[in-house]
Amino acid sequence: MPSVAERPSEGLNRIFLALADPTRRAVIARLGQGPASVSELAGPSGMGLPSFIKHIRLLENSGMIRTTKSGRTRTCTINGQGLSHAEHWLAEQRAIWERHSDRLEAFEMQEQAEGTARNAERDD
Amino acid sequence: MPSVAERPSEGLNRIFLALADPTRRAVIARLGQGPASVSELAGPSGMGLPSFIKHIRLLENSGMIRTTKSGRTRTCTINGQGLSHAEHWLAEQRAIWERHSDRLEAFEMQEQAEGTARNAERDD
Repeated sequence: MPSVAERPSEGLNRIFLALADPTRRAVIARLGQGPASVSELAGPSGMGLPSFIKHIRLLENSGMIRTTKSGRTRTCTINGQGLSHAEHWLAEQRAIWERHSDRLEAFEMQEQAEGTARNAERDD
Repeated sequence: MPSVAERPSEGLNRIFLALADPTRRAVIARLGQGPASVSELAGPSGMGLPSFIKHIRLLENSGMIRTTKSGRTRTCTINGQGLSHAEHWLAEQRAIWERHSDRLEAFEMQEQAEGTARNAERDD
């Protein structure tokens, strides 16, 4: 049974996997400018529709896009929450890393200042 | 022959694929707090070293971490540029999407205002 705690991690797995492909990233980039039908999206990929639909399903399963069917046309819309989820995770990692780098820099500057002070004392 | 234009895309493929796994994300999160040896990193994963090393290689190939060997110890360090590359791509997509949403909202508000004005004229 998957625990509740695993869910956010599972979500990030699906989002990052969906983003690990140039065709799927091109779909995200295109949908940022507004909804589009699957056929419109497939056009620039130069891919057969059955192969292309697999990419659309993967994006839909990741929660980054939504699709609705009206008659024979399936329309795709971006869902900003998926993108935000990935972006927040990365921003959080960068914040941790920057805090560490700042502390490291402060430590090194202090070490250097103390070294200079010791040398000055010795030179007196 | 891979074209020059494909390279940034290849880089993003590797970065997002590297991030699509909780073990590898845990390594990134840990390394944000400072360098660590492969054995230290493998500890919390509960994974055998040979399996764990595959994750380290994938992260190294993505450019998100660097490793150096000294004697029998391999030390891993985070490389912020890889994370920034992914973060910039996501931020760019969000910016495109938000600009579109803003234009859409402005358009809808204008439509609504014009509708109200038309109704007011009719009521006069």
